[in-house]
Amino acid sequence: MNVVIIGAGNLATNLAYAIHSKGHNIRQVYSRTYESAYMLAKCFDAEPVIETERIITDADIYILSVSDKALAEVASKIYIGREDCLFVHTAGSMPMDVLPAQRRGVFYPMQSFSKQRIVDFSDIPIFLEVSDSKDKSLVADLANSMSDKVYWLSSSERQFLHLAAVFASNFSNHCYRLSEKILQEHGIPFDVMLPLIDEVTQKVHVLPPKDAQTGPASRQDNNVINKHIQMLSGNPDLQNIYELMSKSIIHDKL
Amino acid sequence: MNVVIIGAGNLATNLAYAIHSKGHNIRQVYSRTYESAYMLAKCFDAEPVIETERIITDADIYILSVSDKALAEVASKIYIGREDCLFVHTAGSMPMDVLPAQRRGVFYPMQSFSKQRIVDFSDIPIFLEVSDSKDKSLVADLANSMSDKVYWLSSSERQFLHLAAVFASNFSNHCYRLSEKILQEHGIPFDVMLPLIDEVTQKVHVLPPKDAQTGPASRQDNNVINKHIQMLSGNPDLQNIYELMSKSIIHDKL
Repeated sequence: MNVVIIGAGNLATNLAYAIHSKGHNIRQVYSRTYESAYMLAKCFDAEPVIETERIITDADIYILSVSDKALAEVASKIYIGREDCLFVHTAGSMPMDVLPAQRRGVFYPMQSFSKQRIVDFSDIPIFLEVSDSKDKSLVADLANSMSDKVYWLSSSERQFLHLAAVFASNFSNHCYRLSEKILQEHGIPFDVMLPLIDEVTQKVHVLPPKDAQTGPASRQDNNVINKHIQMLSGNPDLQNIYELMSKSIIHDKL
Repeated sequence: MNVVIIGAGNLATNLAYAIHSKGHNIRQVYSRTYESAYMLAKCFDAEPVIETERIITDADIYILSVSDKALAEVASKIYIGREDCLFVHTAGSMPMDVLPAQRRGVFYPMQSFSKQRIVDFSDIPIFLEVSDSKDKSLVADLANSMSDKVYWLSSSERQFLHLAAVFASNFSNHCYRLSEKILQEHGIPFDVMLPLIDEVTQKVHVLPPKDAQTGPASRQDNNVINKHIQMLSGNPDLQNIYELMSKSIIHDKL
């Protein structure tokens, strides 16, 4: 498959490596700055491009992997002169409609990516959507060549997937952060928490999170809950979160 | 070392296996029911005991690993006739003073244990405390024989360690649970979230949680935050948690 990658950020970089490793042909990498386009393009003998007019017009698929903010603008620029081409974006939180193209779609690999760490895609779920059913097999072929976990999901459902991911990844990380804060105040290194964190994560591979729940709120131990709330009296932010999370855990058990 | 294990629950079971595997001698296992005392004791050729009077009086250390609620009562019973013995409990949330003994201490391995899954102790941090400095080396020797991560921590500091663990493990698991709830409402299996959860967990092994933070709140993307809050309007519990966590993440960046 002939592919053009629009963007050279964390997701674009990981995606380009995964696509290339499956034998597809990355023809060009577009980015706003020459350096970032070049740094990524050179890994695949692709052409770095910084002017939209120089993007080829005969690729099988154009993958837009830029920031949510820039997506609409970049998409409308590139669409000009490529009205018959297939465009997909990679943003979990953006609807398919943000693309002006007739043949449009979404190719959303749900993972936290960084350039410094090129990850294996085979385990990463990819969520697909296309406007034109004729493009289904092309997009599915690309996804299936990369991952064992390929799903079709509409824009409206994908919004909720993204919201669920905020809870499972961003908010759980913030729980680690709040834990770190408490430890710091008492001179205890955060590292002591890692075996426990690893165990909790491994548990949800074998038990649904609801059944894996433990702790004072889970056993409705009001003595400990009230003592903890008191211990956080100097920190209203943490105190509010402690109360709300505990209530939610208790509520979930009823 | 001659050890008596008081209790036969999740922690007691894992602890007994770890102690035995390091060549120490588990002489007796006490439990309220014969069956549970026997089931654990037989693994080490130890004697199962259900009457406190039958507990030996010449062990090097008595480890009380019972529920927080039962701890004070069980401890005061066993103390009678063993006034010169060394007692330690294993409860992260309980002060050392809950034990009536002169020679008392705490031996707290911080992990989430279950009987069904006997874990390797070498990576599990153990937090120690003793009332009599003469017992320091005995308790430290036992802990060091089991784990590479042994720390001394006072009862008042250990309270905060336990509080920090509630955030890092119980509340992060509840974030997974809330994620699961949102997915269930849209017919998406929770399994799709696991690669992302694993990545977040692996990240805090190499980056402090503060630096590992990503997501809409972290980049102060109010468009997405407001859309998410609206999407949760049918579920005030989740909506409140979303708002409070997002505020706390934004606040933490300032």
